[in-house]
Amino acid sequence: MCGIAGVWNVQDAFSVLHDLLLGLQHRGQESAGIVLNNFRVLKGRGLVEQVLTEENWLESERGIGHVRYSTAGSLEEIQPLVAFTKKGKIAIAHNGTIPDAEAWIRSLQERGAVFQSTLDSEIFLHLISMSSGDEKEAIVEALKRVKAAYSLVVLHEGFLAAARDPYGIRPLFYGKYRGGFVVASEDSALKAIGVEEIKEVPRGSVVFFEEGEEVVEFEKREERFCSFEFIYFARPDSSFLGENVHKARCKMGEELFAENPIEADLVIPVLDSGLSGALGFSRASGIPLDVGLMRNRYMGRSFIMPVNREKIVKKKLVPIGDVIKGKRVVVIDDSIVRGTTMSIIVNILREAGAKEVHVGIHSPPVRYPCYYGIDTARKQELVASEKDVEEVKRLVNADSLFYLSLEGLKRAIGRSELCVACFNGEYPHLK
Amino acid sequence: MCGIAGVWNVQDAFSVLHDLLLGLQHRGQESAGIVLNNFRVLKGRGLVEQVLTEENWLESERGIGHVRYSTAGSLEEIQPLVAFTKKGKIAIAHNGTIPDAEAWIRSLQERGAVFQSTLDSEIFLHLISMSSGDEKEAIVEALKRVKAAYSLVVLHEGFLAAARDPYGIRPLFYGKYRGGFVVASEDSALKAIGVEEIKEVPRGSVVFFEEGEEVVEFEKREERFCSFEFIYFARPDSSFLGENVHKARCKMGEELFAENPIEADLVIPVLDSGLSGALGFSRASGIPLDVGLMRNRYMGRSFIMPVNREKIVKKKLVPIGDVIKGKRVVVIDDSIVRGTTMSIIVNILREAGAKEVHVGIHSPPVRYPCYYGIDTARKQELVASEKDVEEVKRLVNADSLFYLSLEGLKRAIGRSELCVACFNGEYPHLK
Amino acid sequence: MCGIAGVWNVQDAFSVLHDLLLGLQHRGQESAGIVLNNFRVLKGRGLVEQVLTEENWLESERGIGHVRYSTAGSLEEIQPLVAFTKKGKIAIAHNGTIPDAEAWIRSLQERGAVFQSTLDSEIFLHLISMSSGDEKEAIVEALKRVKAAYSLVVLHEGFLAAARDPYGIRPLFYGKYRGGFVVASEDSALKAIGVEEIKEVPRGSVVFFEEGEEVVEFEKREERFCSFEFIYFARPDSSFLGENVHKARCKMGEELFAENPIEADLVIPVLDSGLSGALGFSRASGIPLDVGLMRNRYMGRSFIMPVNREKIVKKKLVPIGDVIKGKRVVVIDDSIVRGTTMSIIVNILREAGAKEVHVGIHSPPVRYPCYYGIDTARKQELVASEKDVEEVKRLVNADSLFYLSLEGLKRAIGRSELCVACFNGEYPHLK
Amino acid sequence: MCGIAGVWNVQDAFSVLHDLLLGLQHRGQESAGIVLNNFRVLKGRGLVEQVLTEENWLESERGIGHVRYSTAGSLEEIQPLVAFTKKGKIAIAHNGTIPDAEAWIRSLQERGAVFQSTLDSEIFLHLISMSSGDEKEAIVEALKRVKAAYSLVVLHEGFLAAARDPYGIRPLFYGKYRGGFVVASEDSALKAIGVEEIKEVPRGSVVFFEEGEEVVEFEKREERFCSFEFIYFARPDSSFLGENVHKARCKMGEELFAENPIEADLVIPVLDSGLSGALGFSRASGIPLDVGLMRNRYMGRSFIMPVNREKIVKKKLVPIGDVIKGKRVVVIDDSIVRGTTMSIIVNILREAGAKEVHVGIHSPPVRYPCYYGIDTARKQELVASEKDVEEVKRLVNADSLFYLSLEGLKRAIGRSELCVACFNGEYPHLK
Repeated sequence: MCGIAGVWNVQDAFSVLHDLLLGLQHRGQESAGIVLNNFRVLKGRGLVEQVLTEENWLESERGIGHVRYSTAGSLEEIQPLVAFTKKGKIAIAHNGTIPDAEAWIRSLQERGAVFQSTLDSEIFLHLISMSSGDEKEAIVEALKRVKAAYSLVVLHEGFLAAARDPYGIRPLFYGKYRGGFVVASEDSALKAIGVEEIKEVPRGSVVFFEEGEEVVEFEKREERFCSFEFIYFARPDSSFLGENVHKARCKMGEELFAENPIEADLVIPVLDSGLSGALGFSRASGIPLDVGLMRNRYMGRSFIMPVNREKIVKKKLVPIGDVIKGKRVVVIDDSIVRGTTMSIIVNILREAGAKEVHVGIHSPPVRYPCYYGIDTARKQELVASEKDVEEVKRLVNADSLFYLSLEGLKRAIGRSELCVACFNGEYPHLK
Repeated sequence: MCGIAGVWNVQDAFSVLHDLLLGLQHRGQESAGIVLNNFRVLKGRGLVEQVLTEENWLESERGIGHVRYSTAGSLEEIQPLVAFTKKGKIAIAHNGTIPDAEAWIRSLQERGAVFQSTLDSEIFLHLISMSSGDEKEAIVEALKRVKAAYSLVVLHEGFLAAARDPYGIRPLFYGKYRGGFVVASEDSALKAIGVEEIKEVPRGSVVFFEEGEEVVEFEKREERFCSFEFIYFARPDSSFLGENVHKARCKMGEELFAENPIEADLVIPVLDSGLSGALGFSRASGIPLDVGLMRNRYMGRSFIMPVNREKIVKKKLVPIGDVIKGKRVVVIDDSIVRGTTMSIIVNILREAGAKEVHVGIHSPPVRYPCYYGIDTARKQELVASEKDVEEVKRLVNADSLFYLSLEGLKRAIGRSELCVACFNGEYPHLK
Repeated sequence: MCGIAGVWNVQDAFSVLHDLLLGLQHRGQESAGIVLNNFRVLKGRGLVEQVLTEENWLESERGIGHVRYSTAGSLEEIQPLVAFTKKGKIAIAHNGTIPDAEAWIRSLQERGAVFQSTLDSEIFLHLISMSSGDEKEAIVEALKRVKAAYSLVVLHEGFLAAARDPYGIRPLFYGKYRGGFVVASEDSALKAIGVEEIKEVPRGSVVFFEEGEEVVEFEKREERFCSFEFIYFARPDSSFLGENVHKARCKMGEELFAENPIEADLVIPVLDSGLSGALGFSRASGIPLDVGLMRNRYMGRSFIMPVNREKIVKKKLVPIGDVIKGKRVVVIDDSIVRGTTMSIIVNILREAGAKEVHVGIHSPPVRYPCYYGIDTARKQELVASEKDVEEVKRLVNADSLFYLSLEGLKRAIGRSELCVACFNGEYPHLK
Repeated sequence: MCGIAGVWNVQDAFSVLHDLLLGLQHRGQESAGIVLNNFRVLKGRGLVEQVLTEENWLESERGIGHVRYSTAGSLEEIQPLVAFTKKGKIAIAHNGTIPDAEAWIRSLQERGAVFQSTLDSEIFLHLISMSSGDEKEAIVEALKRVKAAYSLVVLHEGFLAAARDPYGIRPLFYGKYRGGFVVASEDSALKAIGVEEIKEVPRGSVVFFEEGEEVVEFEKREERFCSFEFIYFARPDSSFLGENVHKARCKMGEELFAENPIEADLVIPVLDSGLSGALGFSRASGIPLDVGLMRNRYMGRSFIMPVNREKIVKKKLVPIGDVIKGKRVVVIDDSIVRGTTMSIIVNILREAGAKEVHVGIHSPPVRYPCYYGIDTARKQELVASEKDVEEVKRLVNADSLFYLSLEGLKRAIGRSELCVACFNGEYPHLK
């Protein structure tokens, strides 16, 4: 779970990267980093506004950046990575994972490679460094060899490159901006700074930005865009494959009701992620939406010792008893991963006086781990991988539990060329 | 705009104060402070979780705390204030303002008083110190003398006191907790830590907590609870005068439509404050609610220089074009103070393709400054003090603009014994 | 143990105060604070350079400042103190202590005074506030009433005042500077910024700085300047009563040998405080000086747990075995307070191979506590208050131990009108 | 200018590394870093006590560490460096420089190496990674290939290695400690933690620590230990080649007078580095030593804008006029590099009233840059490389200036197998 950005030949690249990464902050809040021209590096733990502060400002016209969700890792593990190679100075920022990273690392080490982080992203650096041809050919060759889901930006002294994997699993967009170019994981981040014409980096292609843009296709497979970006991960105002995320989530809610007509008094979203789906569910069902669970926005973490998950969730999600009391409520959320949070939510609602608590999830059960960069969980932690819907219902103590079907999901998004491996185990790269 | 809290004879008062102030954080985010037994002080700029950190934890059974909205002031200006007087050691935390503070300060100085802050709250300390009688009598005497809107907690070595002004303008609640007592500005903060039976500090009374609780009435006037707490300031899950805030705001939205029936395609809340009202407006009108303006939650402040207000608002409130395009939208917000933000919002919506933009405000025009602790603005800054509705409509560039009437507001809250001085200029303390 | 400074009508008072306090840093390293014109306050824990940083810089022409040695106390306890009184806004910085502070505080509280710190310095504020007459008369009246050892700077909107107690126990100097005036605890701090003509604030007088300087004598007693400033506390390049501190310490070393002729191979100073005395001792005796104990300047505190005093001293004072081995050494230090450090030093030298270890102290045994601001220790902690020289010798495990006599001390300083209460218990203010 | 340390199989390696690096802090104050077992990394800017804080403490039994003097560079540039290679996980800390680093880097890049820092120390990592044989053979092979001055510690999962270059230019010592082994740049750091038997890592050898110690010689040349460690860089209580540094400096002072008999009233050391030499000069000449220039130990940097070098030096070195006035003084310092500081010092002394100022330097003129890790300066900045002694004398405005001869230096140290390339340009590795 990461966001990446790039800037080429734009005045004050630092501030532009700041704004792009701010627009991608929902993709990673644990660390932020940028590399500017002359390969000056600025990295730190925390939010964009804590790392890219005014006092750290540097004059710059080019650069790449990265925001990351990751609780572990020293500063060396924060991207972008910088390398001094025979192809020149190179910096990369990478969103995605390489499923067979371990084998790659071992094979490169056998050839003498010195890895200086535990990031599989570093594999790209060594492949580029060891490839023949000029620096662009080396990048294309490296991309051809790695079978993975990724979006990638590469800063070279002579150009900026932006690439997506052959299936187009992870997103990446670009556009012209103030005489140069900008690149970002989501189009909303580009829109927010005023980019007017936004293009998708085509899957299996790398776009080189110099004076102009040059698209080089290296290997194209059938489209398999990540459905979880639509369901949960992306910003509501982003669009992928031409479909707006918020609207797709609303339709997921509508489809969810169509597949699961239910009687209730209130639709309650789990804020913030469940709001769009709950709007759709309310509209389709005619059951009024209400804010039965407030979100305390000032909560970093719980305090009273000993800390436990239940207490944290209870402080973040606060019931409004006057809304809930005596009501049959339908709680709408985007997905269930481990099931722990939903158990606590149902419990909160029952304690606040709900007569019945129904749980509607506007995506199918998550049964398989993601090898493409969504950090859901390992298989054994996925509640739906071991338990059927009835068992999960009992676990979370709901009066009823219903998911959206895979077909319903595709109908809602309006596209079917999606990666849905976490739901059905069909991994594109293993086909 | 402040929140106050108190703890008496409860194990780990530090953590309880932390949790109470966290629950009151929406009342003030600029500074936080606590005073514990033995009058140890912990103060700092920033959020509760930044000031009351685990490493600053102290064993304690008693204490008072304060969160404050204020951009200016040195550390001396952060409450609670501590004083060593002939009545013993005293700490106070105060929510509210004293309209004639300047005269009081001058009069007390004449008697030799040494003021060490610019807070009018310090007046209480000097009055208590100079009053005759024992420490409780001195507090009662001091409260009798100050004509103001306030909630106050006072920590003494022998007791905790909680007081409200004669009109009950500012809120204060208390309850039994783990063998002792807890006090907070809103009942929701008490509920959140598990207090079961919650009482209001009666207006014009001080409650002394020692072994038990003792209510001493010093001067009771007609009830005049602050209507702005209902409209904007308080947490949705709080209740005042027995009425839930979120439900009251929903009803304000309903009343707003009843008074201003309008045709439109979408109701769009200005998140987060406008959501409850928009829900009510949507319900009453049948016009579907949608999230046309997202809120970027990672924005601290804008960056690209020079900073201007429009850019900041534009980064915080992001339109979803697919939702808005070609639609007649009604934006619902709780109030308009200066009008600047609403102008920008209307502009954002038009740029995103809205066909018509109607603005509905679920409270009356704010025409008069508040002398009771709501930092609205000085009179000349209040857009409605100089301009009529038509002029404000033109200023914000809306297709139409409509407010809720004072009667509608009272109907929505379900009570009429409110302070509505900011709307009609009738200040309770001047009657 | 504090240092104070003042600036009146000098461009960039902030930077001048920074430089003056930096020059007084040896008088207090735990906290620093300044108050500038308009009574803006800047305080913090740590060194001058950590508190008065460039980013905190403020334009200013006037101000007072304070550095303090004190491990306890919240930010409220950091001087200067600011007060809003009927005499106007007042800030004070105080070096010294008030022996009967408790009685003063109780008496002022009885009159209604609200104390907001535990500093006895606050007494001056209340006395000034409660005094009759104009602001200058009030200051003079307050100074007359307090029987104490002090140096004091007072900033008022209309003037700066600098005062010393009737016995002149604590130091204070001033001079003209860039069209205005500067004040500091030691003349060396003034010299360092380039002040050419430096005057002492006369004992029992207050100097008011407005357009010019006006000296007002309020009560003059016989001179009793603190001898410990000469022995240990002041900077070597400072002068008091016209005598240079470093030269006085050298002479103490010379007198020490004259009174205690001894045979040895090496004179070893306890760095840094013992260096001047050791130079004198070496010169008078002809015994060569050598650096047998280095000082590790990077030591903040010991680390390996559990921390103990011996380990800390051993890391700070490192023996050079090649220098010491097989030698009869005389260690010279300025004073012995508790005796613990000297025990460890003797032990270090013996372990490093010294044949004999003799300890020479260039001041008399400290037998009585100081009530005038030198934080030596309470009486029972003073090793010499309970033990005679022979017993102390055995305690520190020295082959011999010898002190300078009181007469020798006076001869070395060249003056006899000194406060030597810590040596003979004759406290000037009790005469 | 760096210090390195290693710990193998000792309880609480973190605290031991802390103490060793603290003992080496004079070798580098800009950054500190350690790598512990499991290759956990802790790095930061600042002093050891600021980076290796208690809150960062980690349980550990093995590790290596580094302190560095360097004002530039991002966190990636702080040693130790960690690498994941086919030889396993490796961390290195390096003191020294590689004269032909650029050629090495280019050659390794040609073979595909990805450099991730600008440190020449990284060359060792790539050489080890690309070498054949097992991990120990790879280290030996890498050391054989690099012609440079270095001390090196290498942490591997299976062993700790400590190596010195074939000429033994940079120092490195080790000893048994609490059942394991400890390594450090200077013996004094080992002595300080209580190591009893201390050995030198033989030049041209690597010592592997596993259960026991195994010394492997890879290439031995004639001894050429850095004379500048004796003159300036090392701690006075350290010993090299069996000679104590402080005593050697004293003898340099004695030899300096022997070569330059002069008449004067006072010998004044430039504290702290000139003290030992001044002691020797004073002893040999009979001219009394005095502290004519105090050092202000609280100075970080100057403040009053604009900052200039003269103002900084003037705040750090404060004259004691009473000592200097009317006297013929000999200032003793260890070396002159650029000449700027000495100009200011002479100026300070003249302003303070010195009748004559003679400058004695207890080493020969520094005429050639050091390629072995002492960051003196580039050739054109070395005042003595372009100017003869008479010209330098005039530049610093001294009445006379005299250096120690190369022969005098060797006599003082008592050894002649030294690297003196900075004085005579004869670089060992070019022979």
